[in-house]
Amino acid sequence: MTALAVLDYTSVVIFALTGALVASRAQLDVVGFCFFACLTGLGGGTIRDVLLNRAPIWMGDPTYLALCCAAALIVFFTAHRLESRFKAILWLDALALSVAVAAGAGLASSLGQPLPIVLVMGIVTGCVGGLMRDVVGNEVPFVLRQGELYVTCALAGSGAWVAVQALGLPAPLPALACAAVTFALRAGSMAFG
Amino acid sequence: MTALAVLDYTSVVIFALTGALVASRAQLDVVGFCFFACLTGLGGGTIRDVLLNRAPIWMGDPTYLALCCAAALIVFFTAHRLESRFKAILWLDALALSVAVAAGAGLASSLGQPLPIVLVMGIVTGCVGGLMRDVVGNEVPFVLRQGELYVTCALAGSGAWVAVQALGLPAPLPALACAAVTFALRAGSMAFG
Amino acid sequence: MTALAVLDYTSVVIFALTGALVASRAQLDVVGFCFFACLTGLGGGTIRDVLLNRAPIWMGDPTYLALCCAAALIVFFTAHRLESRFKAILWLDALALSVAVAAGAGLASSLGQPLPIVLVMGIVTGCVGGLMRDVVGNEVPFVLRQGELYVTCALAGSGAWVAVQALGLPAPLPALACAAVTFALRAGSMAFG
Repeated sequence: MTALAVLDYTSVVIFALTGALVASRAQLDVVGFCFFACLTGLGGGTIRDVLLNRAPIWMGDPTYLALCCAAALIVFFTAHRLESRFKAILWLDALALSVAVAAGAGLASSLGQPLPIVLVMGIVTGCVGGLMRDVVGNEVPFVLRQGELYVTCALAGSGAWVAVQALGLPAPLPALACAAVTFALRAGSMAFG
Repeated sequence: MTALAVLDYTSVVIFALTGALVASRAQLDVVGFCFFACLTGLGGGTIRDVLLNRAPIWMGDPTYLALCCAAALIVFFTAHRLESRFKAILWLDALALSVAVAAGAGLASSLGQPLPIVLVMGIVTGCVGGLMRDVVGNEVPFVLRQGELYVTCALAGSGAWVAVQALGLPAPLPALACAAVTFALRAGSMAFG
Repeated sequence: MTALAVLDYTSVVIFALTGALVASRAQLDVVGFCFFACLTGLGGGTIRDVLLNRAPIWMGDPTYLALCCAAALIVFFTAHRLESRFKAILWLDALALSVAVAAGAGLASSLGQPLPIVLVMGIVTGCVGGLMRDVVGNEVPFVLRQGELYVTCALAGSGAWVAVQALGLPAPLPALACAAVTFALRAGSMAFG
């Protein structure tokens, strides 16, 4: 399994957890948990793949659907123990964003896309799954909240990927730099925003 | 005309009726009725086709657009006579869901897609048109309401298709089983949910 | 540069301005302005291109992204001087709609698409960017407001394009007729609606 695939799986699972937590707040049944887990976990990557004119990743590899449903089940059986599901969503979402931006920028870069497209695909992969979760789940989208700097973190992360790669540093350094910058900025804006 | 085409046309028309009823609740003009009818009638199938990398059905066959506009006109001239447009939406939507899940699972199955993709395409075709209608129409999405078991019905229906086909029973038995299971579950959850 | 490209660039920039004004109402940071500018400016054209199975225009030509970000910056530094950002959105949106409908109908027509698809692509290019802006920006979608005749204007404009072209009149007359009809109707419905 390549480093890119590991990144992709990881971001899908963490986003799926945040989706399932929204289903938990809405008190849906277990299939509703799976629906939100798949929508959030796979939404950003699917839009990225449609834009890049590739078959969506999960259509060729059912592992993605299985991972999302597993994440949904875990949340279904444990979420009632959480004191604040909203806080859990916030921090998981920050983590998922960091990994997904790295996965998206990395994929676009490995396909030889030009620089602006690499930046955009990092943002799309990082932000669109959570955006779909919030729009369908009737929450105020993260990208719309003041002081959250949501898209800014994604852009900074994509930029870090491009910069580290331009310096000629080998994998997985661009991915690590990207995830670290995205998460640090996002955590900072959540703590002080 | 094949059995699959009949299913597809039928689900498109019934979903279009529910879309036009939302336009009626919002007191739009007649073109607004057609817009919501097309969005709801064709939204699920369009996303399914984009995911499967096929041209959207209605782009090659203008009958779909004509059917949606005809459904919009019928509602435009008769909806004011309904006592409760919301109740009409609910029951028509249950019917449309049942037929659309069968149409989506059937298409994916006829294209030789693997089992998980058949299940997903049944759900996408059944749920996404109504989801778009609710999101654009500023209503709480059906998939989000407690006790509605919306996605669960779609999954059970897709599962029934797969099961009946695995038993080797000929068309149109898988489609009939799928629509019957979906509608029975959905009606049950509406009556007792 | 062809007349179609000029239309496309113009509609993208004006829609991007309306997107940035929504970001300004929500008091986002500068990257949030760019995000809404790109979403609104490129959303309709992207959906049109995905439906027509073409690569989205902005993926092959980074000028589009640059124009959207430039529009975002202009609004970021000047919007606080506007007395009513909502009124500015309204009139800019009407202008953008007129140009985008012409761009969408023109592209579909130049690709040899049949008449109903030309009409639909005019509507999609004109309406979907603003729809995404409103859905993500948590505003009541324009298409849903009573007396706005939003989609009706787009349909009338697309129809004007088709009619003027059917009369055999040369470019840019179909585009001019389309934009004029769309804008006149939209301005009328805003003034008297």
